[in-house]
Amino acid sequence: MSHSPSLPSPVTVLGLGPMGRALATTFLRAGHPVTVWNRTAGKAAEVVAEGAVLAATAAEAVAASPLVVVCVLDYDAVHAILEPVAGELAGRTVVNLTADSPDRARATAAWAAGTGAGYLDGAIMVPTTVIGSPATLVLYSGPESVYEAHRPVLQQLGGTAVHLGTDPGRAAAHDVALLDVFWTAMSGIVHAFALAAAENISARDLAPYAKGISGLLPDIIDDFAVKADKGEYPADGSDLLSAAAGMEHIVHTAQGHGLDIGVLAAAHATARRAIDAGRGSDSFARLVETIRTPSA
Amino acid sequence: MSHSPSLPSPVTVLGLGPMGRALATTFLRAGHPVTVWNRTAGKAAEVVAEGAVLAATAAEAVAASPLVVVCVLDYDAVHAILEPVAGELAGRTVVNLTADSPDRARATAAWAAGTGAGYLDGAIMVPTTVIGSPATLVLYSGPESVYEAHRPVLQQLGGTAVHLGTDPGRAAAHDVALLDVFWTAMSGIVHAFALAAAENISARDLAPYAKGISGLLPDIIDDFAVKADKGEYPADGSDLLSAAAGMEHIVHTAQGHGLDIGVLAAAHATARRAIDAGRGSDSFARLVETIRTPSA
Ligand SMILES: NC(=O)c1ccc[n+]([C@@H]2O[C@H](COP(=O)([O-])OP(=O)(O)OC[C@H]3O[C@@H](n4cnc5c(N)ncnc54)[C@H](OP(=O)(O)O)[C@@H]3O)[C@@H](O)[C@H]2O)c1
Ligand SMILES: NC(=O)c1ccc[n+]([C@@H]2O[C@H](COP(=O)([O-])OP(=O)(O)OC[C@H]3O[C@@H](n4cnc5c(N)ncnc54)[C@H](OP(=O)(O)O)[C@@H]3O)[C@@H](O)[C@H]2O)c1
Repeated sequence: MSHSPSLPSPVTVLGLGPMGRALATTFLRAGHPVTVWNRTAGKAAEVVAEGAVLAATAAEAVAASPLVVVCVLDYDAVHAILEPVAGELAGRTVVNLTADSPDRARATAAWAAGTGAGYLDGAIMVPTTVIGSPATLVLYSGPESVYEAHRPVLQQLGGTAVHLGTDPGRAAAHDVALLDVFWTAMSGIVHAFALAAAENISARDLAPYAKGISGLLPDIIDDFAVKADKGEYPADGSDLLSAAAGMEHIVHTAQGHGLDIGVLAAAHATARRAIDAGRGSDSFARLVETIRTPSA
Repeated sequence: MSHSPSLPSPVTVLGLGPMGRALATTFLRAGHPVTVWNRTAGKAAEVVAEGAVLAATAAEAVAASPLVVVCVLDYDAVHAILEPVAGELAGRTVVNLTADSPDRARATAAWAAGTGAGYLDGAIMVPTTVIGSPATLVLYSGPESVYEAHRPVLQQLGGTAVHLGTDPGRAAAHDVALLDVFWTAMSGIVHAFALAAAENISARDLAPYAKGISGLLPDIIDDFAVKADKGEYPADGSDLLSAAAGMEHIVHTAQGHGLDIGVLAAAHATARRAIDAGRGSDSFARLVETIRTPSA
């Protein structure tokens, strides 16, 4: 398994969901020999057409490359695939680009260490369409030496790769916090389209304004970050009482149309909790602390 | 009360919360004589220093200008201010820039018509700091003739003014849908900072990545808008099952830290409802329909 350092080294990709396929395709286009395996073999057709070799078993796939990239649904799936082939892992490096929680990332790293494999935990922060482009962002954590050894190959995924330190849970900790921003915002977007439809506003008509609103978020993120780190929450410009009134209008309107109001009702309840604790004239950023003390 | 059309016409601003103050200041800087009134008179100091005249009563304030802009907490506050001065409103125009629900906007428009006032309902879609700048966006609905008559003055607020039609509830309908995007996303941002803090990640360290994530939203809004209007939800790139798994990691991690998980648990429950109905391999955009049929 020795390869000339001047030739792109072999990479194995386990998992061919949309993201696994994007990873395999990107490594192939960068010139790496790529071996793939997926529980459901049929999903390999697209990457095989691009030049990937489909291994008959996960063990064969692992044996094909010094670097094994895993990208599946969650860490239960990772263990379902890797545990039966644990004997093949010694001396290889596993880069786990599957998303899961920081505690599970630490547990999987400990398990991988027991197999004799090098292990990096990674979190992909962009959609499949972005992989390979300059907009890619992948966060890694785990041993510095393992990261440095594989950085040239991982860099083929494009854009920005960040090594967040040796704690294998660090990438997943960032991932869950960032997915919190993402999936909560996504829940607001689908709810807004549902509410607009109930008010006879097409999604197409709402979209430009919705994009404008989402364009306000970056400045607010910077402002709230300063407040959260200081633990000081002056309202400057809009306070929690005003926010809660706004949320009530949305809930009232959505309820009138018989929509699912779970997300907003929960958001409003958190705001009310802060108001009831005497924080109504603080910034909405105050909720960072309200969320951390559910019973206060 | 006749004024030369070449001179900026008088404007009255009722309500001096952060937004009322921003509106009054912007009209003043555009050269309009501005009369203000606020339930709590002390809040007028800043705009009086800029040249506004503080009226002793709401009735005096209304009597000072042909155009009366109201911007307070909600429509209950609007009625608390305007009903006692209803006799002063005939022949004037009320532009209500307070946020509330479409049904209340329609009810307030009907009430205003009974006073003999012209009435426009407006929704301000930007923070106070933006008022007067090219980034301002204000949506209006109500009679075309009333809008056209006052458009030159309203245009002083800067940026984009859009007349959405004669239904007085139309601006508020857009407002609640857009605030749905906004307040739900804001709830995700504060929750993410709380979760990051629990994982010993400072808000300042998370912020650049959080801004990156929010930068993904505009393309997704366009994509989901097409799907929602067509009623077709192919997953292309990421499906509901994968989204639900991601949400579970966040809930699991937040729960482990004892955080308030109301918003995410509700978002996850909606996703689960769609999955249980056999939609797991659809796009997350499918939830637009799931939200509209809470029991299905
Ligand atoms: N898609 C995106 O835009 C995106 C963006 C950032 C991060 N990610 C992360 O990347 C990872 C993969 O995402 P994805 O969208 O490609 O796919 P996914 O839908 O999350 O997962 C599908 C993959 O997981 C496999 N799998 C599920 N359960 C399994 C099990 N018990 N045993 C073996 N394999 C199993 C599937 O195999 P079968 O084909 O046999 O079912 C398939 O390969 C996820 O952790 C996701 O959060 C995705
Ligand atoms: N601030 C923003 O960034 C922003 C952005 C877009 C839209 N808006 C909308 O603009 C409107 C005003 O917002 P805001 O931030 O300026 O202030 P706010 O905090 O929502 O409302 C405060 C104003 O409402 C008055 N008020 C409340 N209850 C009243 C009552 N029962 N009778 C008379 N007055 C009453 C207050 O008078 P006192 O001073 O006497 O309490 C004060 O003038 C809201 O509808 C808000 O949603 C605000």
